[in-house]
Amino acid sequence: MTKSDNLTHFDLFSPTDFRYSVRDLLPYLSEEGYVKYKSRVEAALAMQLSRAGICDKSVAKEISRACQQISAKEVYAEELRIKHDIRALANVIRRRVSDKAKPYVHLTATSYDIVDTANAMRFKDAMKSVVLPDLIRLERALIRISRLHTKTVQVGRTHGQHAEPVTFGFFLSYYVSRLGKRILKINDAVNGLAGKFAGAVGVYGPLSLVVSDPQRFESELLGTLGLGACEVSTQIVQPEAVTDLMHSIVSAFGVLANLSRDLRHLQRTEIDEVSEEFTLKQVGSSTMPQKRNPISFENLESLWKKFMPQMVTIYMDQISEHQRDLTNSSSQRYLPELIVAFDYCVRRLSKTIWDEDRRRPRLVVNSVQMKRNLESSMDQMAAEPLYVLLAFAGHPDAHEYVRQVVQRSIKSGSSFRKIVASDPQLKKYYDKIGNELRFVENPVLYVGIASKKTETVAKNWERILSNLR
Amino acid sequence: MTKSDNLTHFDLFSPTDFRYSVRDLLPYLSEEGYVKYKSRVEAALAMQLSRAGICDKSVAKEISRACQQISAKEVYAEELRIKHDIRALANVIRRRVSDKAKPYVHLTATSYDIVDTANAMRFKDAMKSVVLPDLIRLERALIRISRLHTKTVQVGRTHGQHAEPVTFGFFLSYYVSRLGKRILKINDAVNGLAGKFAGAVGVYGPLSLVVSDPQRFESELLGTLGLGACEVSTQIVQPEAVTDLMHSIVSAFGVLANLSRDLRHLQRTEIDEVSEEFTLKQVGSSTMPQKRNPISFENLESLWKKFMPQMVTIYMDQISEHQRDLTNSSSQRYLPELIVAFDYCVRRLSKTIWDEDRRRPRLVVNSVQMKRNLESSMDQMAAEPLYVLLAFAGHPDAHEYVRQVVQRSIKSGSSFRKIVASDPQLKKYYDKIGNELRFVENPVLYVGIASKKTETVAKNWERILSNLR
Amino acid sequence: MTKSDNLTHFDLFSPTDFRYSVRDLLPYLSEEGYVKYKSRVEAALAMQLSRAGICDKSVAKEISRACQQISAKEVYAEELRIKHDIRALANVIRRRVSDKAKPYVHLTATSYDIVDTANAMRFKDAMKSVVLPDLIRLERALIRISRLHTKTVQVGRTHGQHAEPVTFGFFLSYYVSRLGKRILKINDAVNGLAGKFAGAVGVYGPLSLVVSDPQRFESELLGTLGLGACEVSTQIVQPEAVTDLMHSIVSAFGVLANLSRDLRHLQRTEIDEVSEEFTLKQVGSSTMPQKRNPISFENLESLWKKFMPQMVTIYMDQISEHQRDLTNSSSQRYLPELIVAFDYCVRRLSKTIWDEDRRRPRLVVNSVQMKRNLESSMDQMAAEPLYVLLAFAGHPDAHEYVRQVVQRSIKSGSSFRKIVASDPQLKKYYDKIGNELRFVENPVLYVGIASKKTETVAKNWERILSNLR
Amino acid sequence: MTKSDNLTHFDLFSPTDFRYSVRDLLPYLSEEGYVKYKSRVEAALAMQLSRAGICDKSVAKEISRACQQISAKEVYAEELRIKHDIRALANVIRRRVSDKAKPYVHLTATSYDIVDTANAMRFKDAMKSVVLPDLIRLERALIRISRLHTKTVQVGRTHGQHAEPVTFGFFLSYYVSRLGKRILKINDAVNGLAGKFAGAVGVYGPLSLVVSDPQRFESELLGTLGLGACEVSTQIVQPEAVTDLMHSIVSAFGVLANLSRDLRHLQRTEIDEVSEEFTLKQVGSSTMPQKRNPISFENLESLWKKFMPQMVTIYMDQISEHQRDLTNSSSQRYLPELIVAFDYCVRRLSKTIWDEDRRRPRLVVNSVQMKRNLESSMDQMAAEPLYVLLAFAGHPDAHEYVRQVVQRSIKSGSSFRKIVASDPQLKKYYDKIGNELRFVENPVLYVGIASKKTETVAKNWERILSNLR
Repeated sequence: MTKSDNLTHFDLFSPTDFRYSVRDLLPYLSEEGYVKYKSRVEAALAMQLSRAGICDKSVAKEISRACQQISAKEVYAEELRIKHDIRALANVIRRRVSDKAKPYVHLTATSYDIVDTANAMRFKDAMKSVVLPDLIRLERALIRISRLHTKTVQVGRTHGQHAEPVTFGFFLSYYVSRLGKRILKINDAVNGLAGKFAGAVGVYGPLSLVVSDPQRFESELLGTLGLGACEVSTQIVQPEAVTDLMHSIVSAFGVLANLSRDLRHLQRTEIDEVSEEFTLKQVGSSTMPQKRNPISFENLESLWKKFMPQMVTIYMDQISEHQRDLTNSSSQRYLPELIVAFDYCVRRLSKTIWDEDRRRPRLVVNSVQMKRNLESSMDQMAAEPLYVLLAFAGHPDAHEYVRQVVQRSIKSGSSFRKIVASDPQLKKYYDKIGNELRFVENPVLYVGIASKKTETVAKNWERILSNLR
Repeated sequence: MTKSDNLTHFDLFSPTDFRYSVRDLLPYLSEEGYVKYKSRVEAALAMQLSRAGICDKSVAKEISRACQQISAKEVYAEELRIKHDIRALANVIRRRVSDKAKPYVHLTATSYDIVDTANAMRFKDAMKSVVLPDLIRLERALIRISRLHTKTVQVGRTHGQHAEPVTFGFFLSYYVSRLGKRILKINDAVNGLAGKFAGAVGVYGPLSLVVSDPQRFESELLGTLGLGACEVSTQIVQPEAVTDLMHSIVSAFGVLANLSRDLRHLQRTEIDEVSEEFTLKQVGSSTMPQKRNPISFENLESLWKKFMPQMVTIYMDQISEHQRDLTNSSSQRYLPELIVAFDYCVRRLSKTIWDEDRRRPRLVVNSVQMKRNLESSMDQMAAEPLYVLLAFAGHPDAHEYVRQVVQRSIKSGSSFRKIVASDPQLKKYYDKIGNELRFVENPVLYVGIASKKTETVAKNWERILSNLR
Repeated sequence: MTKSDNLTHFDLFSPTDFRYSVRDLLPYLSEEGYVKYKSRVEAALAMQLSRAGICDKSVAKEISRACQQISAKEVYAEELRIKHDIRALANVIRRRVSDKAKPYVHLTATSYDIVDTANAMRFKDAMKSVVLPDLIRLERALIRISRLHTKTVQVGRTHGQHAEPVTFGFFLSYYVSRLGKRILKINDAVNGLAGKFAGAVGVYGPLSLVVSDPQRFESELLGTLGLGACEVSTQIVQPEAVTDLMHSIVSAFGVLANLSRDLRHLQRTEIDEVSEEFTLKQVGSSTMPQKRNPISFENLESLWKKFMPQMVTIYMDQISEHQRDLTNSSSQRYLPELIVAFDYCVRRLSKTIWDEDRRRPRLVVNSVQMKRNLESSMDQMAAEPLYVLLAFAGHPDAHEYVRQVVQRSIKSGSSFRKIVASDPQLKKYYDKIGNELRFVENPVLYVGIASKKTETVAKNWERILSNLR
Repeated sequence: MTKSDNLTHFDLFSPTDFRYSVRDLLPYLSEEGYVKYKSRVEAALAMQLSRAGICDKSVAKEISRACQQISAKEVYAEELRIKHDIRALANVIRRRVSDKAKPYVHLTATSYDIVDTANAMRFKDAMKSVVLPDLIRLERALIRISRLHTKTVQVGRTHGQHAEPVTFGFFLSYYVSRLGKRILKINDAVNGLAGKFAGAVGVYGPLSLVVSDPQRFESELLGTLGLGACEVSTQIVQPEAVTDLMHSIVSAFGVLANLSRDLRHLQRTEIDEVSEEFTLKQVGSSTMPQKRNPISFENLESLWKKFMPQMVTIYMDQISEHQRDLTNSSSQRYLPELIVAFDYCVRRLSKTIWDEDRRRPRLVVNSVQMKRNLESSMDQMAAEPLYVLLAFAGHPDAHEYVRQVVQRSIKSGSSFRKIVASDPQLKKYYDKIGNELRFVENPVLYVGIASKKTETVAKNWERILSNLR
């Protein structure tokens, strides 16, 4: 532990603190915030001891007041002396209360009754108060932009190759749906967080000495903190609740990384369909003044690469020997960083695509270029509708026929649509096909139900988000 | 692709096929099984085309019959020729049907309509038919053994150190609860698997040409296969459903690895509380005939180490560019292996701890040694109940008092309980404490509500499992 | 273990065996090959026992002959009976020899003397005989193609944006250098593999009973197998040698994945600078006959995603408790798969870019399109050389000046080069700059020493490869 | 970026900054240190420009002086304005120099010429000045302790089961060897770090405009900074050098984690062979005053679990598209954290096992208990030497014979050594075996060459370390 008072943000190693920080999360996820939450659990314990008739209400209130005054600084100073973080906290609280109250501080608790409960609380609060609202804001921005582009045609790309037309709104609605579902998953995982008050090995030893129904004591205590109790604990709560929460976050991070990857490639010079806004004072490159780089999309993908593999740590932390070993302790102290980095990315992506003040997109969408790109491949794009319509009209080998004509068209450089239009053998099928031939003649029309789907998806998620609890 | 007909299990590279294989999963997860599932989707498509009035019912039946005859071998032979796996399948089906039926084979489908739907089906079937039943069997075995040891005292260990008493049944009930919850998680994830029939870029282009309501066509088709439709697809279904399934499996794997780690350490020579059964013909070591090694527990932990990091691949596969790139294709072909290895471990652990035929534990539990280990630390174990009872009785500094006596007891080698029993300053507190002093005198009693909890948990999960759907 | 004799490649779960297999690696890395290698170690042990005077030479020869006849099938059958793989091997050898020879089979050896030594041997042989030659072939193909395009101009891209000119040969020489260095790294790691013959806990217990210098016995024995001895072993060799080997492979895999990623994106419809060859019978898509997909590049990146995270397993396997636990055993059985998948990718990439038979590239390079892409950005690309030349000529604020002109040029749509050419304030600098202004007027020239570097790198690696041992 | 001036260590998210920090690494790896290193590269560039005759020496000195005064704070303030970190640095330097010098600041450089070179330098300095010396101190402590216990017998354990005797010194010498080799690996990797000065796409565009031999310019410049040049760069140096460095660190971390795991388990209550020192004021548990927990060993394993998976990020960062994308930028900013956490662990482990001031072990080794544990299994431990000696004496089926006697001994509870001593059939072999029978009678002697090996290894590494450069 290195603790000086003349610290600046540049005397640090971790970029999460000086570069990718989210100030709004400090009350929950900083070390100071952590100590505050642990103090709140100690206070709640005192109140519950009084409720259970073990100490006077006045004693409980005295302890509770003391708990509100604790700072991380003094707890760390005490830990340095006695080398135990939670006993240090208890000592610091005890110093602030009367002799009468002293015995009731931390009474019946084991360290991890405090630690695991405080973590569940602060993760829950951080998610409910900051991260989920940020995610919902991002989702709403995506919905709005998708609606603006319900009919903006764009070429669909598979394998990086032009495939068939979509709309830019439809492209986004795929992310609206994926991100929406992840928001629900995160919300469920947050609601699954639980605390514990079951003692050093999970059998409620100390509580059994002083109350008749230890499980009721536990659930009442946790209830005042807004948490449920873990069905069975050892010294620690079952690790799966936190594992599920982190999975929900990491898999949501993956959705954002995919969106960033897509937007980043759509900003390629040759494609040029979208771009990040670029301010006048901004420098694109230290030596190539003309550059416009997708730095926010790149940043997000980079932070995803950094934090996604932390799931391996989290899976490894599922294993704790017997009634627990401590090998999950230091590693778990890094869980807040993952939440901060994720939220930083959510906010940065929001800001990159949407101007909240002016309620309009900040993402630059070049719909003229989208159309141009689409049209550059339009001739060959007629192949699929033609093949389906021919088969539908009874052609016995439509796919193979079309495949060969495409090859010929490529080889000869002549238009696919011209070749097939003039093929006398197709005449009888064309007659059957009738009006639907327009999709072959003008494949830009061939967007299926893209627009309708975009609208359906937008409505669905607006409804779900407005009911989210 | 290497395909010879004179193959033995020893001409292989992957242990999943010759060493950790589960024969019961072959119909779902082998390559042959995969081709069968893809054929079933092609058949269902033909039937739906007929239902939608696009082809005759007789045509659909003809195709359907052909689909049932397809073998992996002929599909691979065709793929070798044309280098496309799904078009190869379509060609092979087409060869088997009349000219009248040919145009309707695969009509309106894109490859991944078939692939993603077939994967959802076979993963679902494998999980519902084999893996979940195996898990439930294991969970039931754990419940039964936990009940046999509701009152078998054992020392609780934290940091590898003797802490406070638990019961062996309670120890197991922690796993009953954790595994139970994972079973529900897996079941939910399986139910979340979805198929798709939305064409090459997700906008239902081909279907739009031939039916008026493509989404209805899709949901009817998938309904006949027992699946729902993905809300929005690109060429592929949203990757999160499979990601969640694999997370549920990998996190369940972690629970089993933790149990194996615990049992493995309880088998240490010095601890000797449990052991794997050892048959008479078995060889413990090639040169140390006396060895009894926890090889099944070790094996499980080793396979967990092998397969857990595959989650990284799965998270990376959430990213697919634009309407999809193919960089998730080869990697996804390895998903079945993860399921097989997990199921192998579930079965092996089941067999190691429970004899299904004789309906009794196969895990050797040495309750005499458990008691002996517990008793070896009993003197100092009185410290916690004494501290709590003293504090409860009004001692102003009970924890510090007890801490110092323990230090003294260790230093002097004299009994902690003797020192505290004879300390005159404690007299007045002892009077207040009264009968509860028995926990100090005989800490074996200090198991809290371990037995009751074991029974509650057992009942809870028996009830849940019997309702599982 | 599932062992039937009527096995086909489609009754398997792992794609490494039916789809991404490398037949040439079977003798080393299949289970049959593994048993053969273990038998060779047993044979070498017998020979060394005779060399040390412990048994007759005839006995050693008898054992050695027996070892050559062992098949995996019979070893597995015996293992099924006695549940120990190496004792099973010893039993099977013993059955084949006279009573006189029986005692000397496996004498003084512990299982992992055989296992770890056999693994070191077969990994070494597989790498030296197959993988390294394959890598060298790939490296030579890259060198050749780089030389063909020493002067083929291409736009350099940073952040997906056009930056400054390079040549396609230079682009490849970056990979020649990276892959070359990885080949050396792999070669070093292979040479670092070691065996052991130090008994069950590493102190040469059994050997100490029968020879005076057990370390000499060990190094002579291993010497006959082409291996050195590990400095200190426990039951197992130190894990770092294999860890380093796998790191060298995985990091080489990363280089190939990067090259594939690049080539894949260069094949995008809008960029169209390279493409995989496409045969006439090949089907691009099951419904979009016009598609030309970069499937080999995608395949490689996908297999990299699958196998790279196995490094996590390998790092976890560095930890083995005390003189070893078995939790690295099952996981290590999967190491061969990683080597096979890597080699499959090396071969596939080689074949995709180079036609060995006709000794010419198979990768289609569209140098016309490369030039076209470069020229599309040429106007703004003049910015950097201008800025540097202006600064060089004494302009006090060249970067800022150029940055502002670029902004103006973008806003107004007028040519950057025209604006700067007509700016009277630059006149005096232009006079100083003189002839070098050609880089501003025609930035295609601005390729620095790209061509020279390409040639230097090519020569360097040809030389190194030809000396590789 | 959040930058306040009233920051304390508790307003942070990352434990690397407030809990696991290493103050001695701040000059290299903090953000302030990073800015200092980048300034040094800018200064070196100015000096090289003067050496190449491009600017006056006085100009170079002016820039160099300015570079020494730069603080992170002002660079970040400028970055906030123009959104580009390196151009911000250049601007801040420019502000400090005369108009005459301004044009030469950053001239010919691209951002990553500065960034990658600065990173190579500071990683090298941090490793050479702090981490490697710390590692060598730890290695020396291990050597010393191993020597103190050359003959301290301990039971060797495989699978957690007593196997055969070793010595505690031998146990440690396995780690001396493993860690020693990792130190060499790290040292090699550090020496492999390289810088670059090749411009925005690697072809030395800007330098080509102003010097005749850009590669010489680069290697001279880097030479003044103690670095070599990367053979071919794009915008960035080849990623493999850093990948190798991080692999060497992470694999060394694994060795320390294994040692910690071992020592942690040897501290188990039932085993009790070693323990961490425990100070008088230290609190073992918040409610169980008797606990002595292996918290430093647990801490180390936990931090290993946290940081090891970062290798996945590092492998992913090998991929950068074309001449580079920025998706490795944010992730690379976290590399220092990995080095800090590793060094924190090296120091903590050193301090836990060795008292540098008093030059004696701080690790508590309980050799009495080691002997006791060994002796508890001694009877069965006679099995292996007996089997080997019998076989050596010509017994045709010694292993099977011994295996059966062991089974009988276990079943009947009678002594293995007694049964075999009284078996008349063994008489003739015993006569042949002679004096060597002492290993059967007293298997404590059966430590092979443990002591000699310990000494050899100690000497070897003392020699190597003293020559390390």
